[in-house]
Amino acid sequence: MDIEKENSLTCCPVARGLAKVGDAWSMLILRDLSLGLSRFEELRVSLGIAPNILTARLRALGEAGLVVKRRYSERPPRDEYVLSDAGRDFLPVLHVIGEWGRRHNGAGGTSRLVDTETETLVEPVVVDRLTGKPLAGAKLRVAQPDDPLVSGAPAKRGWLLD
Amino acid sequence: MDIEKENSLTCCPVARGLAKVGDAWSMLILRDLSLGLSRFEELRVSLGIAPNILTARLRALGEAGLVVKRRYSERPPRDEYVLSDAGRDFLPVLHVIGEWGRRHNGAGGTSRLVDTETETLVEPVVVDRLTGKPLAGAKLRVAQPDDPLVSGAPAKRGWLLD
Repeated sequence: MDIEKENSLTCCPVARGLAKVGDAWSMLILRDLSLGLSRFEELRVSLGIAPNILTARLRALGEAGLVVKRRYSERPPRDEYVLSDAGRDFLPVLHVIGEWGRRHNGAGGTSRLVDTETETLVEPVVVDRLTGKPLAGAKLRVAQPDDPLVSGAPAKRGWLLD
Repeated sequence: MDIEKENSLTCCPVARGLAKVGDAWSMLILRDLSLGLSRFEELRVSLGIAPNILTARLRALGEAGLVVKRRYSERPPRDEYVLSDAGRDFLPVLHVIGEWGRRHNGAGGTSRLVDTETETLVEPVVVDRLTGKPLAGAKLRVAQPDDPLVSGAPAKRGWLLD
C-alpha cells in the first residue's frame, strides 16, 4: 500500500510505527495473540473477521516482523501464530489505546488490566522514562534528525573520550 | 463500518479505542493537528492524502469527538480543524507508537520528542500510574467488568461510608 511505503521513508517515528501496524484489525490480532490465542480458527472466531482479511493481515504482520508463524503439525500441515519480540514490545501501545478507549468510549463498562503480582488494577499512563513526567499536558516539540539534540549523541561520546 | 460498530459494543477497551481511531490516516491527521496544522489544504499537502479520503477521515474524527471543525472565515466560508480535549488526550498514544517505530522501524534516523521546559530528549514509556512500573514485561491479566476487582469499586465506597 502507498501510505505504508511512504511512511517507511519519513523521519517521523509515528509514521514509521503506523507503516507496520496502522489499522484496527492488525492491532486486534495482536491483542488476541497476547491473550494466548494462536490458531487461525481461534482468531477468526474471536474477531468475527473474514478469512481472507485475516490471512492478509497475518501475512502483513509477519512481513512487518510482529508475528511469527510456527508449524505445530506436519501431518496435516498446521500453523500457529505467536508474537515476536517486536510484537510483544507493541503491547504497551495497545494498553494506552485501551485506557483512552475506557476514558472516551467506555459507556456500559469495560474490562481492565490487572497486575497479577499485586492483584491490583493497572492504569496505563505514558511518561518520560528519565523523569517519570506524564507526557499528557507536557510541552513538547519535535526535533528533526539533524537537530544537535538528536544528532549530538556521537559528538558527546567523543567529548567524553577525549 | 462493521468493525467500528462491533468494537463499540464490546467490553474490550482496546477495541473501544480503535473503534474511534483505528487507521493510519486518522492517527497521522491527529499528529499533524498536534503540530499546529489546521487547514484542509495544509493537511492535504503534509500528508499527500487524496482530498476525498481526507474529507472522510476528518468527518469520522469529528463524529468520534477527537476533532472540532471551526469556521474562521464567513466570506468566503472557510473552516479549520483543531483537536478536542479527547483528541489531545490521544497524543500520548501517538508518542508510544512513535517510540515503537523508532525502535523497530527507525533505520536512517528519525525525529525525536523534546521537553521544551528542560530541552532534553523524551523517551516515552508506558507505566502503571500508581506504581510507576513499566508495563512492558509486566505480568498482566484482563479482568472482565463483572470481576470483583473491576465491579468492586462501589462496594468499597459503601464500606468506607458505613
